[in-house]
Amino acid sequence: MDGPTSTAAVDRLEREIFAQIPLAVAMGLRVAAYRAGRLRLAAPIGVNHNHAGTAFGGSIECLATLAGWGLLWLRLAAPAPAAAADIVIHRAETRFLAPLAGELQATAVAPPAADWRHFRAMLERRGRGRITLEATVGDAVEARGAQFRGSYVVRGG
Amino acid sequence: MDGPTSTAAVDRLEREIFAQIPLAVAMGLRVAAYRAGRLRLAAPIGVNHNHAGTAFGGSIECLATLAGWGLLWLRLAAPAPAAAADIVIHRAETRFLAPLAGELQATAVAPPAADWRHFRAMLERRGRGRITLEATVGDAVEARGAQFRGSYVVRGG
Repeated sequence: MDGPTSTAAVDRLEREIFAQIPLAVAMGLRVAAYRAGRLRLAAPIGVNHNHAGTAFGGSIECLATLAGWGLLWLRLAAPAPAAAADIVIHRAETRFLAPLAGELQATAVAPPAADWRHFRAMLERRGRGRITLEATVGDAVEARGAQFRGSYVVRGG
Repeated sequence: MDGPTSTAAVDRLEREIFAQIPLAVAMGLRVAAYRAGRLRLAAPIGVNHNHAGTAFGGSIECLATLAGWGLLWLRLAAPAPAAAADIVIHRAETRFLAPLAGELQATAVAPPAADWRHFRAMLERRGRGRITLEATVGDAVEARGAQFRGSYVVRGG
C-alpha cells in the first residue's frame, strides 16, 4: 500500500492549476492522488482523443508536463509557501509506447534523494535550481503508454 | 517571398483537425499558412497561458506536435488521399528557450529531401515509415521561444 492521499494537498494543487492554466480545465484534468511521493493526474479520453479514437499525443504531453510541474509545486510548498517559487519547464521529452483509449493517468515520481538534495542546495545558494522528473502516462489497460522526462527550472522558493 | 499559401490545403487540414482532435478546438488553434513546404499553426495566448501569464509549456508541445502532424498529413495527401495514411507521434522533444506572451505560432518545416525520399521508400516497400520533423514555436516578439523535434510513424498511405 502506498499510504493515504494527502487530500489537502490535492485540493490545493487542483485549485492552483484550475486558476492558472485554462487548458487544464479544457482538457478535463483532475488531481487524482498524491501519496508516497507520487502525483497522479487524470483526464477523460472524451476531449483528449485523436483521429484514431486513442489519446492525442499533445494531451499526453500536457498531462505529463503538468504532473511533473505539480509534483514540484507540492514538494516546494512544504514547508515554504509555493507561491514563492516560480517553476517553469525547460525541456520535455515524451516517448509514445502504446496507444491509450481509456481515462488518461499521468504519474510523476519523486526524483532520487541525492538529485533532490542537490537541487535544493542550488536553489538556496543561487536562487535557481534545475531538476529532472519522470512521469508515466497510462490508462486502465495499458500502464505505460508513454514515458516522459521533464527538466524544470525553479527560481526563488 | 515564400509564395502564396495553399488555401484549399489550409481549409482541408483545419477541417480535419477540428473534426478529429477536440483539444485543438479548445485551445483555439487555427491553420495560419502553408507555403514553401512550411506549415504554420496559431493559437491565442488567452486559453494557453500559465501561472506566469506566458505560454503554458503543454500548449506549446500540443501546437508543435500538431504542426508536424499537419505538415505530414498535407504532404501525404498529395497526390494520394490523406485518409489512407495513419500518422502517429512516436517521440517528441521540446526545448523551451524563451517565454512567449503573444499569439503562439508553431512552424513545422519540410524535412531534408533525402530524408523524405527514404521515408517514402520505406512506406511503399514496408507499408510503414518513420520521419523526424522540426518545428519552432514563437510569437510576434520572440521568433524562437521553443524548438521541437518530433518523430512520426506512418502506416499505409
